[in-house]
Amino acid sequence: MNYRMLWYLLSVLLLIEAALMLIPMAVALIYGESALPFLITVGILAAISLPGVIQKPKNTKIYAREGFVCVALSWLLMSAFGALPFVLDGAIPNYVDAFFETCSGFSTTGASILTRIEGLHYGVLFWRSFTHWIGGMGVLVFMLAIIPQSDSAIYLMRAEVPGPTKGKLVPKLRQTALILYAIYIVITLAEIIALLIAGLPLYDALVSTFGTAGTGGFSVKNASIAGYNNPAAEWIIATFMLIFGINFNLFFLVLIGKWRDALKSEELRVYLALAFSAVVIIAIQTYESIAGFEKCVRDAFFQVSSIISTSGFSTVDFNKWPGLSKTVLVLLMFIGSCAGSTAGGIKISRLIIVVKNAVREVRHMIHPRSVNAVRLDREPVSEETVKSSTNYMGIYLGVMIISVLFVSIDGFDFESNFTGVLACLNNIGPGLGAVGPAGNYASYSLFSKIVLSFDMLLGRLELMPMIILFSPSTWRSR
Amino acid sequence: MNYRMLWYLLSVLLLIEAALMLIPMAVALIYGESALPFLITVGILAAISLPGVIQKPKNTKIYAREGFVCVALSWLLMSAFGALPFVLDGAIPNYVDAFFETCSGFSTTGASILTRIEGLHYGVLFWRSFTHWIGGMGVLVFMLAIIPQSDSAIYLMRAEVPGPTKGKLVPKLRQTALILYAIYIVITLAEIIALLIAGLPLYDALVSTFGTAGTGGFSVKNASIAGYNNPAAEWIIATFMLIFGINFNLFFLVLIGKWRDALKSEELRVYLALAFSAVVIIAIQTYESIAGFEKCVRDAFFQVSSIISTSGFSTVDFNKWPGLSKTVLVLLMFIGSCAGSTAGGIKISRLIIVVKNAVREVRHMIHPRSVNAVRLDREPVSEETVKSSTNYMGIYLGVMIISVLFVSIDGFDFESNFTGVLACLNNIGPGLGAVGPAGNYASYSLFSKIVLSFDMLLGRLELMPMIILFSPSTWRSR
Repeated sequence: MNYRMLWYLLSVLLLIEAALMLIPMAVALIYGESALPFLITVGILAAISLPGVIQKPKNTKIYAREGFVCVALSWLLMSAFGALPFVLDGAIPNYVDAFFETCSGFSTTGASILTRIEGLHYGVLFWRSFTHWIGGMGVLVFMLAIIPQSDSAIYLMRAEVPGPTKGKLVPKLRQTALILYAIYIVITLAEIIALLIAGLPLYDALVSTFGTAGTGGFSVKNASIAGYNNPAAEWIIATFMLIFGINFNLFFLVLIGKWRDALKSEELRVYLALAFSAVVIIAIQTYESIAGFEKCVRDAFFQVSSIISTSGFSTVDFNKWPGLSKTVLVLLMFIGSCAGSTAGGIKISRLIIVVKNAVREVRHMIHPRSVNAVRLDREPVSEETVKSSTNYMGIYLGVMIISVLFVSIDGFDFESNFTGVLACLNNIGPGLGAVGPAGNYASYSLFSKIVLSFDMLLGRLELMPMIILFSPSTWRSR
Repeated sequence: MNYRMLWYLLSVLLLIEAALMLIPMAVALIYGESALPFLITVGILAAISLPGVIQKPKNTKIYAREGFVCVALSWLLMSAFGALPFVLDGAIPNYVDAFFETCSGFSTTGASILTRIEGLHYGVLFWRSFTHWIGGMGVLVFMLAIIPQSDSAIYLMRAEVPGPTKGKLVPKLRQTALILYAIYIVITLAEIIALLIAGLPLYDALVSTFGTAGTGGFSVKNASIAGYNNPAAEWIIATFMLIFGINFNLFFLVLIGKWRDALKSEELRVYLALAFSAVVIIAIQTYESIAGFEKCVRDAFFQVSSIISTSGFSTVDFNKWPGLSKTVLVLLMFIGSCAGSTAGGIKISRLIIVVKNAVREVRHMIHPRSVNAVRLDREPVSEETVKSSTNYMGIYLGVMIISVLFVSIDGFDFESNFTGVLACLNNIGPGLGAVGPAGNYASYSLFSKIVLSFDMLLGRLELMPMIILFSPSTWRSR
């Protein structure tokens, strides 16, 4: 384990966090609020990180193990320090609650312990939503984009970017990171402009866009997006949630004129087909002649888009929807969006691989001598990827079961515990029952909140980095 | 596809069913009830099967594909005809309900649509419980024990005997089948005697033992085993449920004096450790000083034993237990018992393989050059078995999700739908919520009942035979 390099990377990261925190501090100053909560945190971060940043270690070589540990520790430390402004501001007096809220922010979950959001300071609410935007693309990808290239950077990228296979856009990692961020910023700006045109104030357009871009779901309204009473804004946000759930590689293909290839993507087609089917089923089940056709489709589209992209914004309390519609949503919670997007969940491409592999297994039992490769976009998927996808499902289930077991100590009903863990592990936010769109996570015990905080980071980093961080054999020298 | 041989095997099987039905017919006659429902069914079965049995086909060779199809069709047909006495007797007027109840019987699930059991005829209730006993060991294993050996029999056995690896007790299949049945009968007799000593009437001792031996759970009392108000009987049944969840290979080892090897079995140890931990957690959570220590431990032990062995008898309404205890039970529902037992569920050995494989995967990510085999009982498990175990989990989840989706059309709450499917797929019987120990499946729609009936058979046959039966590529000639 190259501890020197690890220490250096983490120091750079905390310094970046300090720099990013200057933005909400400016917001606080603009609104005439105290900048002290941010100033103190920035001071602490600078004091801790500067000594480490000054001298770069000679041996910059790191391997897979260090990559995973570095990524896991970054997200833990970012959340640990990112929670301070909430405590210092008094918005969230309890540190565990603030840690939960910050993990929820960076992991783009959007699960909240706040029962009353309106009335809190503009600065902290800006920071709360801004963590979504930072977490959406990944802090380490950001670091890759700004620090000089290193051979070892691939291990950081592998550990942080979601999906069963890591596509490289261009041979150079730094360039890939820059392109990803450029795409991210352009779509973000497009949404901000669209929301401004729809009539949202600048502040609300900004924080809502952060929540959408990161597929997070924190809102500055108690009633989430429903609080704006703005159908146009609902359509815009619903559409952008769906867009941010698409693999960013496809946007790159469009950018370089290969939009035909982008449209051929199997993952994209399954993604859109799933969303469309869900909207149709739900719209039929929830149709009321009084509310009207447009409202019914809009509500169905918004909620489906919000859940499949694992954002978690809401415009209606889907907890009150009929059984099948709720089950469809729970199913979408499991699946999530495309690999290489800012969204969480099991990911569509992983699901496609697992389903195709299952079909192949059945075929193999019927015709024992048949040999077929699992194919994605007509290309054969390596057996290594197939294996890691099925294993991922197993580990995912294991984490889920253990979490539900821990959380159920609090004595809530099964539906709340199950969907609460699901919503945190898949970075969605709201579940059903007590943690539905109209409820929140405030009433869970501190222990459960810590469990759920870890679930959120586990989900965002696709399990492995966090598991490797806490696995004894990581720290054993060989 | 060797249709002639398939037809012959199915005919033999239906003739066996006709023969077995003479026993409940005798019971009906003893209690002075009409034997007609059974007589008519026996007549129909004989008329259908006799022509096929008379001439054995020349080409008796079958392969994996025929094996799976034969097993799947046997169970479907056995249930389809086994349902007739319930309809003819009038106990269950609707044929779909009767089919559900019979699938539940043969698959050793014990899920019931009957709301009032007491007062029904002795004959049909005997048949209802007897299907558990028949289904527990498997009808095809029985056929193997009585018909002359064929090379192809291995495919039947593979398709019907549960667990990730099929251990052969002795080289000859027929001998294996005979030994299995001998063990089954001996333990069955032991329980009958124990229950008679505890003071149960012969009829009740018989039907309760059938339910225990098959790990089924049908009872002739509305209140299940609680209806006897007999603590001694509760201890006996709880113990035997646990026994019937153990791999029968271990009993064989004990029989030939190798009891040390039996005790070393990793699967057995995990099984007992899981049961013990669950009893401790639940006993602590449900302890009330008024009821007393013995009652509290007995209730916890009975329910844990009932759920882990996938029997489904009950002595208390665990639906009213606190959150953690309920979650522990749901967890046990998933896991089930040992491979090679009469119980359902994912099976402990499969779980051990999947967990060890996950640990290996994590290790491999930390130390990419490490190569380790997954081991069970210190023996390396073949990669083929590891792969099929992880795939099994994937297919299992897929079936579960689709079933929950279908069942949720009825509009019951998520907890009922989810645990109802879980309880049927894992052959347990009662779930939580509306399908808890105090409820039943009567209020589900006919469509849901058909879905759940298939789930029961899917679970009992460990998915593959039923999936292969309905998969188009089975019927395509190559």
